[in-house]
Amino acid sequence: MGNRVFNFAAGPSQLPLEVLQKAGNEITDYHGTGMSVMEMSHRSTMFQQIFLDTKNRLRSLMQVPDNYEILFLQGGGSTQFSMVPLNLISRTGKADYAITGHFSEVAAKEAKKYGEVSIACSAADSDHDHIPSQSELNIDQGASYFHYCANNTIYGTEWSYTPDTGSVPIVCDMSSDFASRRVDVSRYGIIYAGAQKNLGPAGVTIVIIRKDLAGTELPKTPLMLNYQTLIDKDSMYNTPPCWCIYMVGLVLEWIENAGGIETMEQRRKEKSEILYRVLDDSRLFHCHARPGSRSAMNVTFRTGDADLDAEFVEEAAQQGLVNLKGHRLVKGMRASIYNAMPLEGVERLADFITQFDKEH
Amino acid sequence: MGNRVFNFAAGPSQLPLEVLQKAGNEITDYHGTGMSVMEMSHRSTMFQQIFLDTKNRLRSLMQVPDNYEILFLQGGGSTQFSMVPLNLISRTGKADYAITGHFSEVAAKEAKKYGEVSIACSAADSDHDHIPSQSELNIDQGASYFHYCANNTIYGTEWSYTPDTGSVPIVCDMSSDFASRRVDVSRYGIIYAGAQKNLGPAGVTIVIIRKDLAGTELPKTPLMLNYQTLIDKDSMYNTPPCWCIYMVGLVLEWIENAGGIETMEQRRKEKSEILYRVLDDSRLFHCHARPGSRSAMNVTFRTGDADLDAEFVEEAAQQGLVNLKGHRLVKGMRASIYNAMPLEGVERLADFITQFDKEH
Repeated sequence: MGNRVFNFAAGPSQLPLEVLQKAGNEITDYHGTGMSVMEMSHRSTMFQQIFLDTKNRLRSLMQVPDNYEILFLQGGGSTQFSMVPLNLISRTGKADYAITGHFSEVAAKEAKKYGEVSIACSAADSDHDHIPSQSELNIDQGASYFHYCANNTIYGTEWSYTPDTGSVPIVCDMSSDFASRRVDVSRYGIIYAGAQKNLGPAGVTIVIIRKDLAGTELPKTPLMLNYQTLIDKDSMYNTPPCWCIYMVGLVLEWIENAGGIETMEQRRKEKSEILYRVLDDSRLFHCHARPGSRSAMNVTFRTGDADLDAEFVEEAAQQGLVNLKGHRLVKGMRASIYNAMPLEGVERLADFITQFDKEH
Repeated sequence: MGNRVFNFAAGPSQLPLEVLQKAGNEITDYHGTGMSVMEMSHRSTMFQQIFLDTKNRLRSLMQVPDNYEILFLQGGGSTQFSMVPLNLISRTGKADYAITGHFSEVAAKEAKKYGEVSIACSAADSDHDHIPSQSELNIDQGASYFHYCANNTIYGTEWSYTPDTGSVPIVCDMSSDFASRRVDVSRYGIIYAGAQKNLGPAGVTIVIIRKDLAGTELPKTPLMLNYQTLIDKDSMYNTPPCWCIYMVGLVLEWIENAGGIETMEQRRKEKSEILYRVLDDSRLFHCHARPGSRSAMNVTFRTGDADLDAEFVEEAAQQGLVNLKGHRLVKGMRASIYNAMPLEGVERLADFITQFDKEH
């Protein structure tokens, strides 16, 4: 297996080694079927079992109530930016969007094609360094839904609370912290998440939808962007991304074996606290996100000196701590520490931060 | 690697064993990078190289002219059913569709959401057992485009010619015979194909588009369904299905090493002729598709006795010839013999057909 690195990329990112090894071991012959999962008809008994197991595992781990459907779709979060308004906004013709970063802004812009959009809050003025509090949210009780992004990968901020929106259904882009913490699914109308952070390879998007919210799509909604059709066909109107679904299943099994979502939550707390502690203790480094809004998934920090930041990223890479360069909108560094990042990787990074701080 | 079977599924279907083995060997450490392709940031130098190599290989093998872009998208052919009219129909407000099977029918129905659709021909009256000839096509010179499906997976028919449409751009769903034969790409406006037949695992859709056709999308076209955006972003507006693209690259390399598209075309001719010959020579079996319209990818046949058909499928499976059951719309049997089906599999099936014919 060569020399594995600690991969701090924002996604696609590190996957559990055991999962990759298992996938590799059965890549030409899955459980004696004589074929790879990549070769299976999606209608075959074998693949149907993989699909069902994956779905059941997700339902159980995330405690998804029975009145919610779990969909495995394609197109990433950006496709959901369209699907959500296409399917939901006709209820009242308007929707509320919380703007806490780049992706929630794109989502709001996309929704404007299909209805009236109100900005419930925005942290743009302070370069998205924090999440507005409940009292700062302007919720229109006539909105079809309230949309927010739970964790902002680019800025390194994360909502520490589920907003109270009264009777307005909540739609949440949970792409970058899904399955890393316990959420009360029943408080949401729709939760969606691209798999490539905490769940598996890029190419599959999880959608958890309260079933009664489907069926109100706009008349010209494209075939494959219609939640009701996809619910009716159990995600298989056409061929789903079978291999990616299988990989998600393996990752969910790994989470289960590790102790479930509570273990992931405990680990993310431990890992992120280690990093924020050394950063706060350092002379050299500053975090982008304010305390109280800091993400446990993406830790954004910088020295304030672009050359020094570049040196940090380069030297870290030489030690096998790779992909620490920050996003161009925030600059500096970003350490993405999703479920599959081992404690050891975080400890090694913390040591490196401390050492770099001493030496500069 | 266990006992591999000969997998005659209509797609996802058999992949070359060498390709699966190569993917398995580098699944935890791609070329000394210390990570899996599934863990790579799509913006990383490593993945960008994989992406570029795959695209270049496809351009070279398929002889794609420079004024065409190659896109790697998600959502399968069914998403293209919407994308094509959303992006192209505004040119004149109307389009022509050739109906030669289930999927072309769905495509035409979807296009009606966005403009006026004329049926250029239909083989529905004869249960789609043939492809209409050039003289039977009613092409409206005012159409934005002419759409047809090159190979009908369900019925086992295939266009033996590229239609002459005058100045009307041709849009072709080539999902089930792409990369199995030489096509003159310059005669097409758009060619699209889900990968899961001849090219790789399900989860990526190839679109080859003449660049001047993009940019005329309807105003409410969803973000991710806009060809121009995807051309501008080189298929990476958001995270693409990286692993599936990598697998397509490996399959293209395998095609290249085998001698290229001409070799695939020669093999498909040889393989399909073997099967049609034993079927035509048999007393028991009848092909669904008429001579002249027969697919070299999906051979549909039956005994006329449902119980006997079931017996055939079951006995074949016991000999490692699996997934021969026909689609519910045509019934009987279907042998899908895509690029990755070895000659040996076809010969074994031919022998079994001959033997079954003798014994019943």
